[in-house]
Amino acid sequence: MTIGILGGGQLARMLGLAGLPLGLRFNVFDPAANVCGGAIGTHIRAGYDNSEALQAFANSVDIVTYEFENVAIHAVECVEESRVVHPNKKALFATQDRLREKELFQKLGIPTVDFVAVDSLEDVRAAGESLGYPLVLKSRSGGYDGKGQVIVRSADDVDAAWADTAGRHVIAEGFVAFDREVSMVAARRPSGETVYYDIAENAHSDGILRVSLNKPGDPAAEQARGHVQKLLEALDYYGVIALELFDVGGTLLANEYAPRVHNTGHWTIDGAVCSQFENHLRAILDWPLGDTSSKGHCAMINFIGDIPSAESCLAIPDAHYHAYDKAQRPGRKVGHITVCAPDAATLAERINRVEALLVSA
Amino acid sequence: MTIGILGGGQLARMLGLAGLPLGLRFNVFDPAANVCGGAIGTHIRAGYDNSEALQAFANSVDIVTYEFENVAIHAVECVEESRVVHPNKKALFATQDRLREKELFQKLGIPTVDFVAVDSLEDVRAAGESLGYPLVLKSRSGGYDGKGQVIVRSADDVDAAWADTAGRHVIAEGFVAFDREVSMVAARRPSGETVYYDIAENAHSDGILRVSLNKPGDPAAEQARGHVQKLLEALDYYGVIALELFDVGGTLLANEYAPRVHNTGHWTIDGAVCSQFENHLRAILDWPLGDTSSKGHCAMINFIGDIPSAESCLAIPDAHYHAYDKAQRPGRKVGHITVCAPDAATLAERINRVEALLVSA
Repeated sequence: MTIGILGGGQLARMLGLAGLPLGLRFNVFDPAANVCGGAIGTHIRAGYDNSEALQAFANSVDIVTYEFENVAIHAVECVEESRVVHPNKKALFATQDRLREKELFQKLGIPTVDFVAVDSLEDVRAAGESLGYPLVLKSRSGGYDGKGQVIVRSADDVDAAWADTAGRHVIAEGFVAFDREVSMVAARRPSGETVYYDIAENAHSDGILRVSLNKPGDPAAEQARGHVQKLLEALDYYGVIALELFDVGGTLLANEYAPRVHNTGHWTIDGAVCSQFENHLRAILDWPLGDTSSKGHCAMINFIGDIPSAESCLAIPDAHYHAYDKAQRPGRKVGHITVCAPDAATLAERINRVEALLVSA
Repeated sequence: MTIGILGGGQLARMLGLAGLPLGLRFNVFDPAANVCGGAIGTHIRAGYDNSEALQAFANSVDIVTYEFENVAIHAVECVEESRVVHPNKKALFATQDRLREKELFQKLGIPTVDFVAVDSLEDVRAAGESLGYPLVLKSRSGGYDGKGQVIVRSADDVDAAWADTAGRHVIAEGFVAFDREVSMVAARRPSGETVYYDIAENAHSDGILRVSLNKPGDPAAEQARGHVQKLLEALDYYGVIALELFDVGGTLLANEYAPRVHNTGHWTIDGAVCSQFENHLRAILDWPLGDTSSKGHCAMINFIGDIPSAESCLAIPDAHYHAYDKAQRPGRKVGHITVCAPDAATLAERINRVEALLVSA
């Protein structure tokens, strides 16, 4: 059985590492040269607008998935002519526009940060009056890792902020003083079964995820699972999904979802009985889903821009090194490490050892 | 960094799956077409007697290891001209001849089954008198998975048994009524550090390993570690080693060792903090070795000849499926499954579920 993946980055690579033992083969479709996902299968190099190449790709595989949510709907439609694509187009479509996504949350009764659509300078001013300052202007499409966001601190900033958006479609979101950012990663298969991982507590820096900690027994887990369940059902969704949420005094506000395996679920490779990558494959193939239980306390720390040596990292007990074999470049995710421990205090000590390597790197 | 592997079977495949996350790349050298180890790197297809191809292979990598102990010494010497090979030639040489191997055990004070070299029909008769019947004639070289063994049940069998050996060099071994077969898998790095996994208790059928169980806290572990330590030191050995032993009333008798990752260590992928495959790579690169602790009770069950579907196996909790993507053929190892459990009773129940699938497969 051959799985087709649209996108050949590190998520495709980790899907392949999880899937080869399952007897699966992989074809990854990506316009870039030397993609790191090519290590686990055959790299088909062509543009996402190349219908002929997409159709040939579809015909070379049994089922198709994707590793990034900005994949062109056209590309998915092209593949869908001959193969099943999971997660489906509906899930992809809803998340490609931040306004559409927020309206979906609203429709499903999933609480969100206050937001309004803005299409003009006047709309931004009106948003300032209804939401208060500071507010954030966010690109409706194409943004990731904090890119495409402009903070409007006061009414005086409105003109400059609007100019900054440079004609992109944006929405205005109220500023939320959250206690923490969390995410819920889940997997659902066509037969109906859904499994949920423990909540991950996430820390970002410059809009890029730095650290995720798993939180077995977190009091917010049930709330998060409820929100994810609504989404999965509304979207007829199969595969892994990740929902990012703000925790404000114990109430979770949905921020966005990713219709794919997710950086905040990387800890599951080493810290859960069955990883998000294996469960994504099981889910899209409608195979029994794996146990999502945490095996201990885990922290996933991203390597951004550069990567300390494996040798230095592996001196830390129960540390699991994941290099993506990508060229180092500022702001680019080039690998991650997961450290596990039997208790929170030992984990904190191991995290400190990783942080020390990052400072000296 | 690129690792060269002589041999492109499932062990190369699993080394690659462990090594890609470490940022390593792999070139595998194998004369066969479509080897399953090719999925994790570049397959260099040439014969082990092709010096030019071996040299080019060596020059294409940073360090070389191998996945089977029958690799020709000539091939290793060829590669050694330009690259370090671990485990070294000494370790390979000693195990390629069953007599040499047993004499090494003897020299190191590691107990073995009684044995004598036999070069003629008369030698076999003399062996029968000194060792008693039944005895086993085993090929001195090239045997694996029980191939190349002839049982001599009584003096009446001697002529037929000798004819069966067909001129191969053999040794005679006394029959030993062992209580169980066990193995000790260990890893040693050039800086000197050695780590040992829990003992594995193994069951063979028709000379082929069927099942390995990890045995945390086994009373024979210290004895086994002592024997392995002597071997590692005598051979200046770096990498993973596996020593197979017979347990006879609490005394361990060495049977043979494998200078490589080993089938009885496959449970470590899912059942130990750091797998034998990752530790082999760490060891040959002189990186810090990983924690060998067991994470629970585990059983590794080989799929021999054919393989039940992933879908059926993955319905078993905490089951980890490993397909080698090899064509099915009687007596051929085509995959394995590891089931883990928090306690022995739950493990037994999960093993039964696997066995039921094997019967119906």
